Amino acid sequence: MRMVDLIEKKRDGYELTQEEIQFIIHGYTEGAIPDYQMSALTMAIFFRGMSEKERADLTMAMVESGDQIDLSEIEGIKVDKHSTGGVGDTTTLVLGPLVAAAGVPVAKMSGRGLGHTGGTIDKLEAVTGFHVEIDKAEFIELVNKNKVAVIGQSGNLTPADKKLYALRDVTATVNSIPLIASSIMSKKIAAGADAIVLDVKTGAGAFMKTLEQSRELAEAMVGIGNKVGRNTMAVISDMSQPLGFAIGNALEVKEAIDTLRGEGPGDLTELCLTLGSHMVVLAGKAKTLSEARSLLEKIIREGVALEKMKVFLSAQGGDASVVDDPGKLPQAKYTFELEAKKDGYVSEIVADAVGTAAMLLGAGRATKESEIDLAVGLMLRKKIGDAVKKGESLVTLYSNFEDVADVKEKLYENIRISAQKIEPPTLIHEEITQ
Amino acid sequence: MRMVDLIEKKRDGYELTQEEIQFIIHGYTEGAIPDYQMSALTMAIFFRGMSEKERADLTMAMVESGDQIDLSEIEGIKVDKHSTGGVGDTTTLVLGPLVAAAGVPVAKMSGRGLGHTGGTIDKLEAVTGFHVEIDKAEFIELVNKNKVAVIGQSGNLTPADKKLYALRDVTATVNSIPLIASSIMSKKIAAGADAIVLDVKTGAGAFMKTLEQSRELAEAMVGIGNKVGRNTMAVISDMSQPLGFAIGNALEVKEAIDTLRGEGPGDLTELCLTLGSHMVVLAGKAKTLSEARSLLEKIIREGVALEKMKVFLSAQGGDASVVDDPGKLPQAKYTFELEAKKDGYVSEIVADAVGTAAMLLGAGRATKESEIDLAVGLMLRKKIGDAVKKGESLVTLYSNFEDVADVKEKLYENIRISAQKIEPPTLIHEEITQ
Repeated sequence: MRMVDLIEKKRDGYELTQEEIQFIIHGYTEGAIPDYQMSALTMAIFFRGMSEKERADLTMAMVESGDQIDLSEIEGIKVDKHSTGGVGDTTTLVLGPLVAAAGVPVAKMSGRGLGHTGGTIDKLEAVTGFHVEIDKAEFIELVNKNKVAVIGQSGNLTPADKKLYALRDVTATVNSIPLIASSIMSKKIAAGADAIVLDVKTGAGAFMKTLEQSRELAEAMVGIGNKVGRNTMAVISDMSQPLGFAIGNALEVKEAIDTLRGEGPGDLTELCLTLGSHMVVLAGKAKTLSEARSLLEKIIREGVALEKMKVFLSAQGGDASVVDDPGKLPQAKYTFELEAKKDGYVSEIVADAVGTAAMLLGAGRATKESEIDLAVGLMLRKKIGDAVKKGESLVTLYSNFEDVADVKEKLYENIRISAQKIEPPTLIHEEITQ
Repeated sequence: MRMVDLIEKKRDGYELTQEEIQFIIHGYTEGAIPDYQMSALTMAIFFRGMSEKERADLTMAMVESGDQIDLSEIEGIKVDKHSTGGVGDTTTLVLGPLVAAAGVPVAKMSGRGLGHTGGTIDKLEAVTGFHVEIDKAEFIELVNKNKVAVIGQSGNLTPADKKLYALRDVTATVNSIPLIASSIMSKKIAAGADAIVLDVKTGAGAFMKTLEQSRELAEAMVGIGNKVGRNTMAVISDMSQPLGFAIGNALEVKEAIDTLRGEGPGDLTELCLTLGSHMVVLAGKAKTLSEARSLLEKIIREGVALEKMKVFLSAQGGDASVVDDPGKLPQAKYTFELEAKKDGYVSEIVADAVGTAAMLLGAGRATKESEIDLAVGLMLRKKIGDAVKKGESLVTLYSNFEDVADVKEKLYENIRISAQKIEPPTLIHEEITQ
């Protein structure tokens, strides 16, 4: 088998066999196939796409390129959730304790990551003492005991995907649905998921800007998951504006606690109930979505979810008293209000730009080496469709810098007020199963 | 400027500017742009194509990537001819002396090359003493004096094209019209051509198998040439079967001499008169094609072409007596006849396969290190449309091996005889000017 022939085959629109895809991924991972052939192939895939079978074969070849986490010692169906990224997305912090309280085992492997705010681990480290440096045996024991635990990424998971992603990033081949879908799915499967709930974001603040693109990605991932024996479904949710109110690490932990108490933002609560219901059903802990939803609502109402959050935090060394006293989370030195300049209705909150504003305050990492300030960030006081009066606060800024003129300017540029009444955007666009 | 943005621009179907193309070619030649980005770009070009302006800009950027031969000391308009390759193509050996005799300066830079037979230099070295190791001053003096000389390739011509071609070869991006056209044209222009006559082959034995593809390539090259100020035209000529009768080095030299004497194969003679007429007109040595053709026919008829061949050969150390006594050319030890197995009409001569048969006898190089046997090769005794009787010779094999069973078998498989009368293929399909 010669790589040049396989590039030509894909270039001319033919389907690659499982054996050919394994040859490519194995050869690329071990360095026998050079970057310049792989980038020609990925560009051909950009133009020609991949069949459902090719996508599944690519995903499994990437899974098999490295270590695979064995979670078989954990009782029950391990359901993982993945969001495709957006601004102010606090769903992971809420869903872990919430579905665990419903009996769904949540064995979460998380990272730090680059972006507007930190990753799940950064956020959780806003709780004094909380740590993810536990070994695998302890991790499995915790999940079996409490149904929820988080461990830092370790081992050599999907090295093919890591190498390929780095190459795609510099060769303008990131934006290919089959490659994005295989990349995401390979990581979830290598991390040991039995079933997967996907939260595919759509809109200006998401990677996929249009509903059509988001649907295509969701269908691609659901197709892969079900083809490789992982029960998979996707929710397409709105990211035309940030989700919830909080954008920042400690601020999002507080918002997650509020949501688990039943006092969270409406959109975040609704999305968590939707995703959580699917997780509960896939885990076999409820027969129907409405039964699952009632269960989760009851768990919140009766304080069980909040209690689970405390157990989860203290089991990994965290000071669980923050749940009742969020003032113990890191606090910024200064707060500033972004006052509306006129009366009207909020018509646009450009999610990307608002995320960048939070990063300017220090909430996120621009490079791997950047230090995150866990205390800082933004709290939206208004969302799209809300009425606002001149002088009312649109956003509260939490900062350790005294001068936030540039951040305020960026926010003013990206939060628009219209004279006409505006409908808030639809939150859940579609649910895709197969 | 970032390469990744330029890849994306081309990927999305936008036109690259001259400055961007120069950035790419300059960066790639000096190693600042890695192979993996270049191969992603060439695959994007495969799918998106290039505008006429982009092709011209790419050609000139490749010309400027290395040395350019300055032929300004040669009097007159230097017209170069390029054939896109085929089997048994002896046009270069004929056209040099022929148009030189009409006053057109032929300053030919030639190579050895891989393929069914050697390159022009290999063939000419079948003449005892002939050599191309002359310096540039002598080369220019010879052209000014005799109107024709051949020099070996030297200097660092179009290094960008060399590097890019090697990359395309292993990334399945050879077969892209704008890249093929720019590659050919950059070499001709760097070698100092003022005007260019292109002989684009079409049919089973050519790189371009269909008339449509050949026309597309011809139009691309003519478009580039005229856009960068080199008067350029193309003839699309038939390569559904080998051109002429001879396939082999010394055999083709003899065939060229026969043609210059007016006793060559009909198709080779006709193609040389067609291409030669265009060269004469582009060089300003005749006003019309018919005037040019009459001039060339007269030159052959009166023995001037043959005389020019002698002058050309002896000026570069060659034994010109071979022109009158071709027996002085290298002779193979054995000859074998390929006898027709039935009566009928020759309906197919698969050019590629016949070329490979000649290579099996030792007439060509499979790798750069291979030694060529100048004496060996094939002489076709029949061409498509010819009537043949059982037992008549279809091909004479000239060999230094005693056992040619495998070569005969290959020839039998690829020369077909039909019971029905067959029309010979059209030789000149189209002429493209702009």
